[in-house]
Amino acid sequence: MKIAVFGTGMVGNALATKLVKLGHEVKMGSRTAGNAKAVEWVKANGAKASQGTFAEAAAFGELAFNCTLGAGALEAVQAGKKELAGKILVDVSNPLDFSKGMPPTLLVCNTDSLGEQIQRALPETKVVKALNTVTATVMVEPTLVKGDHDVFVCGNDAAAKGKVKELLASFGWKQIVDLGDLTAARAQEMFLILWVRLYGALQSPTFNVHVAR
Amino acid sequence: MKIAVFGTGMVGNALATKLVKLGHEVKMGSRTAGNAKAVEWVKANGAKASQGTFAEAAAFGELAFNCTLGAGALEAVQAGKKELAGKILVDVSNPLDFSKGMPPTLLVCNTDSLGEQIQRALPETKVVKALNTVTATVMVEPTLVKGDHDVFVCGNDAAAKGKVKELLASFGWKQIVDLGDLTAARAQEMFLILWVRLYGALQSPTFNVHVAR
Repeated sequence: MKIAVFGTGMVGNALATKLVKLGHEVKMGSRTAGNAKAVEWVKANGAKASQGTFAEAAAFGELAFNCTLGAGALEAVQAGKKELAGKILVDVSNPLDFSKGMPPTLLVCNTDSLGEQIQRALPETKVVKALNTVTATVMVEPTLVKGDHDVFVCGNDAAAKGKVKELLASFGWKQIVDLGDLTAARAQEMFLILWVRLYGALQSPTFNVHVAR
Repeated sequence: MKIAVFGTGMVGNALATKLVKLGHEVKMGSRTAGNAKAVEWVKANGAKASQGTFAEAAAFGELAFNCTLGAGALEAVQAGKKELAGKILVDVSNPLDFSKGMPPTLLVCNTDSLGEQIQRALPETKVVKALNTVTATVMVEPTLVKGDHDVFVCGNDAAAKGKVKELLASFGWKQIVDLGDLTAARAQEMFLILWVRLYGALQSPTFNVHVAR
């Protein structure tokens, strides 16, 4: 399918590259067309890779991934608001604030979440929160972490979540835990504070959690 | 050893009962001596079980567990402030606020935590946050959850954490992840929002997370 990837950083690059490898046509979107990192990614990924503005990427994609930094995520997705109407937006972003030093805090939490803010800003888009709880390399190659481990999804539209679960399965995810409606984005984003501490304790980002029963 | 358990609810009862079974002398503390649930617990647990006020329990114990509800935790531990000076306080409480309906929110998070508030209120006590990320039955019987799964600890005093890790090992915990200083209590408490969603998704509180690598 045709997919938009918002963001040219590690997460956008990893997801866009994986999607091309899986046979999808991918347009990487950024604030301005011709972004150096996006152009470099297109060169490295062949005929199915293209780049453009957020709005151009949104118009191109039947589905979009938001991989922008949390602080800029709302502005980025609003740049493609009209083009994303009626489509699925997989929100991978985290509202992490590193501006006050380490450890980071969240820009929004507890009674709201970035996922919900994005859904309110784009009411005609079906927002699904997913993949934000693992590092970029693990998102697209779950086998980098040994044994059983899980990815979380939430969103208000069951069919949209179903489509995203299919995509996650195509990435190699075997255990997908559906946490319910989009208010569960609070849970997925607040987990990042524990993720950051685990990163510190383990001295590696290549880990994930498994829900044992 | 002699141990104080603050709180007469499910968590206090489970921990106090386990500690008696392991051979410790336990005094269950509550707001007033003669609390009906504490008296009932003493009757069921023999000669090593006793009850009293928070201050009496704190004076009795060489180490204390805070198992009170989050909303009352600060008031409870301050009732034993003098008696807890120089001792280890294992804070098991969670600042969950159910007053605005489901899902619950946190009374404090992101830039502070209940564990840190308790440490500031009792500066001469060594606060260790532990066990707050699992349901009461799993706290004292980790084998109720199958396979590998982990318990988290944090605190500012390495020796105090070492003592708490020994106690956790005596409960049957095999994998204890040290998240660092007490600011990591934010991570352990913010995880509860995900815990509540997992409880909803799994329809059972008998689960835990494992950090896979």
